Amino acid sequence: MPELQVVLVNPLYEGNVGSVARVMKNFGHTRLALIDPCPLRNEARAMASHAQDVLESARRVTLDEVVAESEVVVATTGEVAQSVCSPTRMPYFAPHELREMVADVEGTVSILFGRENCGLSNQELARAGIICTIPTSPIYPILNLSHAVGILCYELSQLERGTYALASPFEMESLFEHLDRFLDRVDHPLHKRAITLLLARRVLTRAMPTIREASTIHGLLRRTEQLLEASRPRNDDDASPPRGTR
Amino acid sequence: MPELQVVLVNPLYEGNVGSVARVMKNFGHTRLALIDPCPLRNEARAMASHAQDVLESARRVTLDEVVAESEVVVATTGEVAQSVCSPTRMPYFAPHELREMVADVEGTVSILFGRENCGLSNQELARAGIICTIPTSPIYPILNLSHAVGILCYELSQLERGTYALASPFEMESLFEHLDRFLDRVDHPLHKRAITLLLARRVLTRAMPTIREASTIHGLLRRTEQLLEASRPRNDDDASPPRGTR
Repeated sequence: MPELQVVLVNPLYEGNVGSVARVMKNFGHTRLALIDPCPLRNEARAMASHAQDVLESARRVTLDEVVAESEVVVATTGEVAQSVCSPTRMPYFAPHELREMVADVEGTVSILFGRENCGLSNQELARAGIICTIPTSPIYPILNLSHAVGILCYELSQLERGTYALASPFEMESLFEHLDRFLDRVDHPLHKRAITLLLARRVLTRAMPTIREASTIHGLLRRTEQLLEASRPRNDDDASPPRGTR
Repeated sequence: MPELQVVLVNPLYEGNVGSVARVMKNFGHTRLALIDPCPLRNEARAMASHAQDVLESARRVTLDEVVAESEVVVATTGEVAQSVCSPTRMPYFAPHELREMVADVEGTVSILFGRENCGLSNQELARAGIICTIPTSPIYPILNLSHAVGILCYELSQLERGTYALASPFEMESLFEHLDRFLDRVDHPLHKRAITLLLARRVLTRAMPTIREASTIHGLLRRTEQLLEASRPRNDDDASPPRGTR
């Protein structure tokens, strides 16, 4: 599994450095390296919010040091080559492609982010083995630095959304059987029965209910059955005790 | 194709609203709606940068209006339910799952983002058909508002990274044939020939070179062949004119 290092090359605005520290920590990344940064004072600290540790442990480094200590060096660029014949920014990859490319790297993957006003120089780009670009609108392609870092950190984090129990196939079948009995109970026309059950199976399968949701549907059917039972006109046959008892 | 509407519910800091406008425009989205926002003044305009149009055209709306005009309402939450039995924040989906869920929606998909300090209320969450959460580190899960909006806008944008011409299968075969001739030229031992060519095929196929890169490799082989040719010791047989000419 790769270890991500965010490298800001000559960042000009301290607030951005603070925001970068915050969004890195949000996605579980802590290694921040700074090449020739602006002075970091109160605004950087304010924007870092609860990521003071990431900001304070940021190392001042040179590009040579970054290249020496990294398994893979990635350069980000907002501007990509228009022609395949300009190799400085070509070929380039989107963040989700980068995630797959470095998924099996053991060691440090350093991602270089350039200056807010003019990005990375061609010389800096030439030190990277992979060029990455975030697809943006041609109308306004310039992302704020911390937004660009945030999207790379998001794509390269190993975080999952968490899990919760969906209704099992057994519980779903039990729900469909209950629905079948319910249709019987409300005298749903026999010739429509199969298609109605099929539609219900399609809708409920697609919705992928949690166990709680499936159980609420069960409960609603049961409650309705009970009310129907209670309001059913009394029938003499039903009321008489079964033969042979008493 | 869905049309994304970003809905900020009671945003407290005008700078965040400006940053949201900017990152929306970066990803090609322009519909911003505000429910009971803080006053928007200079800081909002400064942070919006070249997205003044998105900020200025932001509509003041109510949640009822948002629900009425949307095909699908999505609520974002940083905090998800711990138990499947708490249906307010359950089930929840990650941004890439949301992208697939709404991919075929025709009409407005409104995404609600809550207050910076306390998110969306349970009542507000209950108005949404889908709950979305961005997976974050449990150590510092609270994203800046504009970072959260940025990641959703990124996931739900239809933007591609652009295309460029990779070397075609024909060009790749031509490269492998050239390599084969080159190995011959440098007297590569015959018993190693097949395995060397196989390794070269594996490495170059995996690297997926552009046409420019493939042509540079051709050029390098050719240049080396020419130098070898020039420095080859003269051989009388080679030097004598072929029989029958002149």
